[in-house]
Amino acid sequence: MPSGAQVPFHDEAEFVGWLRRRWPGRAPGLSLGIGDDAAIVRPTPGCDLVLTTDLSLEGVHFRLDLHPPRSVGHRALARALSDLAAMGARPRFALVSLSIPRTTRRSWISAFYDGLGTLARSLGLTLIGGDTALTGSGAVTCDVVAVGEVRHNQALRRDGARPGDRIYVTGRLGLSAFGLALLAFGAGPKGGAAPATTAPARDRRAAVRAHRYPVPRCRLGRTLAQRGLASAAIDISDGFARDLGRLCDASGCASVIWEECLPLAGLKEERHRGYGPLERGLHGGEDYELIFTVRRSRASYVPRSIGGVALHSIGEIRRGRGLTLIQRGGLETSLEARGYDHFRLSNGG
Amino acid sequence: MPSGAQVPFHDEAEFVGWLRRRWPGRAPGLSLGIGDDAAIVRPTPGCDLVLTTDLSLEGVHFRLDLHPPRSVGHRALARALSDLAAMGARPRFALVSLSIPRTTRRSWISAFYDGLGTLARSLGLTLIGGDTALTGSGAVTCDVVAVGEVRHNQALRRDGARPGDRIYVTGRLGLSAFGLALLAFGAGPKGGAAPATTAPARDRRAAVRAHRYPVPRCRLGRTLAQRGLASAAIDISDGFARDLGRLCDASGCASVIWEECLPLAGLKEERHRGYGPLERGLHGGEDYELIFTVRRSRASYVPRSIGGVALHSIGEIRRGRGLTLIQRGGLETSLEARGYDHFRLSNGG
Repeated sequence: MPSGAQVPFHDEAEFVGWLRRRWPGRAPGLSLGIGDDAAIVRPTPGCDLVLTTDLSLEGVHFRLDLHPPRSVGHRALARALSDLAAMGARPRFALVSLSIPRTTRRSWISAFYDGLGTLARSLGLTLIGGDTALTGSGAVTCDVVAVGEVRHNQALRRDGARPGDRIYVTGRLGLSAFGLALLAFGAGPKGGAAPATTAPARDRRAAVRAHRYPVPRCRLGRTLAQRGLASAAIDISDGFARDLGRLCDASGCASVIWEECLPLAGLKEERHRGYGPLERGLHGGEDYELIFTVRRSRASYVPRSIGGVALHSIGEIRRGRGLTLIQRGGLETSLEARGYDHFRLSNGG
Repeated sequence: MPSGAQVPFHDEAEFVGWLRRRWPGRAPGLSLGIGDDAAIVRPTPGCDLVLTTDLSLEGVHFRLDLHPPRSVGHRALARALSDLAAMGARPRFALVSLSIPRTTRRSWISAFYDGLGTLARSLGLTLIGGDTALTGSGAVTCDVVAVGEVRHNQALRRDGARPGDRIYVTGRLGLSAFGLALLAFGAGPKGGAAPATTAPARDRRAAVRAHRYPVPRCRLGRTLAQRGLASAAIDISDGFARDLGRLCDASGCASVIWEECLPLAGLKEERHRGYGPLERGLHGGEDYELIFTVRRSRASYVPRSIGGVALHSIGEIRRGRGLTLIQRGGLETSLEARGYDHFRLSNGG
């Protein structure tokens, strides 16, 4: 029998007990939480269930040298919750599958669940199960299932946009990508040289924070669904242009975007490796903001902000196919969907 | 931009389209299937939802040289469905997350989903979503979320066994482990030398089939729940002794097992590497049979079989802790929980 000293927990029972102390299995609608073969949930009458699952892979979605374990856990859950936000659903439950090398320290696992748990609790979500495996070697792999609820027929979908609809985006675009650039090229909060930036330290910290601890727009998405404002919605995980393209493809429409209206993260830094605020805003990915459309006749009901998050009118749905960017000078250019595609070898630009 | 020739699908949209043609998104209770940010499901009134998630990792749960892709897909889903069976839940929906090296052939992916899909359809389950990522290198990783339904308060749990309850097991024990031994040591249906076995070819084929294509006991579990017969239940994924131990731990009880009553796979083969039918039956794992307990006063209502699957009375719940095996000669031995534990380096015996 192997020595228990090598592994973070003596056996599965100890690990499950450790998890259960953190998630005691009491929550509205939860009949049975962590520890049995499966969890049991009682759905709220009058609600549909919204289910999504998102992989987070070391080397693809995060790097252990750039993302502390709290951030890895936070981001893994944020990916799934952002999908619920895009559907207008209220987060309820999550299951977490985690595969880790058996040399992983218990402190790493603990911080991973701390990061995940802090975000979960802030949005009223309860961890109800999962699966864990130790591997002899290999990368950290995580899969998060999120379960949300939405009133019957209130869920937002990708395919409801129609020609004439206004296009909106929440928050700011490109902040996460700037944070990643700062982290990856050494100009993070702890100093370093490249990229040469004149951005104040406060802006740099905000960008790194947006990258490491993105806040999915769950409350905002839910408000949109409850008010019946949005005709279609999607979250920005792989890049604004790519995700807007997905919404348009699902709806069978084209779109026109006005560059001057894009809420690009107002960073004063120089261009770095050919990327500036516009490229990062259009293609950067991981902003976890929402893109949504509203019938023109209802556009006057869209507030300037919801819960402190600004809503920006940035374009219009048109007939046809494709994305067009109208630049500040009036020049129209076709916008390529260059953001992240997991079937490409890189950010296929 | 990388060449599309290297990857199994040109982009994510093509892959999602390919999946949607196989799973068109029509099923009772399904409002929105594959292709949006999340799936939408309408729960059946009067039912609880049962949720489970199971990792299947190359090198841990399967080997590409022993398990053809149809088997990998089948087994990945069977793991999750066996959890639903143990809760007495009817399988409804699944989400599949799959991370594969980008050199994986499209034919492998297709066969993986064929295996998974054939099992799903045979049990009335619909694929409603998932996530897929291609990695530069690394192992195949799969995580399957299964969603089932069970009438309010009918779900079977691990923690309901009480001293005096009879212990039952379904089907046969150790067949999957024998199949694995045949595959791993070269005496599979296609021939080879070790383990020296006198088992007829038909039995060997049955063992390999049980290992590669296990059938989770969903209908049987559901019947137990509907009839209110079982006081507790668990499925055998990591070995009979380990999983019975988990049921006893959750219920705060001990158990006594009669060796002569164990439905060991009736294989006439010699012992191999110190393992014979008894060791494989007790510790082999992946049988995906059910262990359940019944109050003594209700034992006479337990039929000999349900849906063609035999039910065997094999022991009794006692006060205290631990598992005792009463051997054929009457000798009592303490039964170690040696089956698979993912926090050990090996089948920690």
